[in-house]
Amino acid sequence: VSPTGKSTRSRIVEAARCLFWLNGYGLTTVNQILERAQANPGSFYHLFRTKENVLLTVLHNNTRLFVPMTVNPIFEKITNPIDRIFAILDVYRRNLVNSEFSCGCFIGKLALEIHDSQNHLHERIAHAFDNWTATIEQCFEQARHRIPQGLDLKTISTFVLTTMEGGVMLARTHKSIEPFDAALKNLWLYFELLQAQRAGEDEAKEEQQGRKAKRNSGRKANIKDPDTSPSQITNASNVGNDSASAAATS
Amino acid sequence: VSPTGKSTRSRIVEAARCLFWLNGYGLTTVNQILERAQANPGSFYHLFRTKENVLLTVLHNNTRLFVPMTVNPIFEKITNPIDRIFAILDVYRRNLVNSEFSCGCFIGKLALEIHDSQNHLHERIAHAFDNWTATIEQCFEQARHRIPQGLDLKTISTFVLTTMEGGVMLARTHKSIEPFDAALKNLWLYFELLQAQRAGEDEAKEEQQGRKAKRNSGRKANIKDPDTSPSQITNASNVGNDSASAAATS
Repeated sequence: VSPTGKSTRSRIVEAARCLFWLNGYGLTTVNQILERAQANPGSFYHLFRTKENVLLTVLHNNTRLFVPMTVNPIFEKITNPIDRIFAILDVYRRNLVNSEFSCGCFIGKLALEIHDSQNHLHERIAHAFDNWTATIEQCFEQARHRIPQGLDLKTISTFVLTTMEGGVMLARTHKSIEPFDAALKNLWLYFELLQAQRAGEDEAKEEQQGRKAKRNSGRKANIKDPDTSPSQITNASNVGNDSASAAATS
Repeated sequence: VSPTGKSTRSRIVEAARCLFWLNGYGLTTVNQILERAQANPGSFYHLFRTKENVLLTVLHNNTRLFVPMTVNPIFEKITNPIDRIFAILDVYRRNLVNSEFSCGCFIGKLALEIHDSQNHLHERIAHAFDNWTATIEQCFEQARHRIPQGLDLKTISTFVLTTMEGGVMLARTHKSIEPFDAALKNLWLYFELLQAQRAGEDEAKEEQQGRKAKRNSGRKANIKDPDTSPSQITNASNVGNDSASAAATS
């Protein structure tokens, strides 16, 4: 592929992505893509043959670039895993505000537009969603010690995605960031409560272990003052402070 | 309007609604609506003039019928306000499963499809969303004593809607009810934690009032055993049982 060819290719992909996002995939014609990309039909048919093939490339790029373009710059700046999640959500918030609510989430829009019968396209869209939630799950893995033991990290990562997609949808329609912020405020409160719940679990465990240790040391005939032991409990309740800073990010 | 005219009108509205839902508003043509409704162009132009006018009627009906058709039958059967919310969400769950994930939420699909510039349509869609969240808010009002004092009921009602819309979107794409259920499971856990939080608030208040009462009765030189007073605390912690039955509904 010559350098010129490569440039035509990326111009077509970028033009298509933009038109699909603004006007939908179904209503976008190949002619509109060519016009916007300043490309000729010959190179289009040589490079892609069909509009669907351009969509597949757009989807592939979207999935491929999410981690290096969106996630890595955030992870380099922020280490707190809960802050990381809210920083990722903030990318969508900024997109909404900066585009005056015309651009929300490219994948979400496609997910509802593409006809139900187009299984092969829905598979690619589902793959893009899975790629997104895998990053969120990675953050929760990092915060595993702050989340209640019994809570499956995959379901809560899915919940973060449904909150983002629902929030984008409502903000777009209301032409206001308010519903997005309302959803995020509740998501943040949920995280707070989960962390408090886990702190309680840890506290109960510590207490139980404390009692056991007391019994054991009692057997060794060396009984200590019970008030000196539960110093590690405060460790668990510190967790709340971390997520207070997460709220500032959102 | 003659009875025949009325029937043509409702046939057109029903056909349009179905086609908009399955294929999108933009891609549906007036001819397709006429064919499906078995109506002729003359009556269409007499009754609606444009495709947009049919959409406005569909949206108007959707908003107008939500309470009598969806909400009231649920409210007649179920009295627990949290159960009511999950029963409303269950309507979307059943729609997804019964349609093999082709039908999710008509309004949500439109919200992402309709072009950003169509302000007058987005206003109607926003109105439909507001109508939906007003019902949810009504349930939370009924459960006000179970929700933390400081939490705004409007934001949490919006959060219920973002969860439903996001859940529908992911279920549709994954062709599985799993992501919808994952989101609802977390929403339910959030409600549980909110109720536990409120029970804690009430308990602290009772304790404070108990101390005050003790001080007051102390002044009257008639000090009671402190263990006899906080009987009403259990009232607040009963709340957990109600929402356990809500989980069974979802």
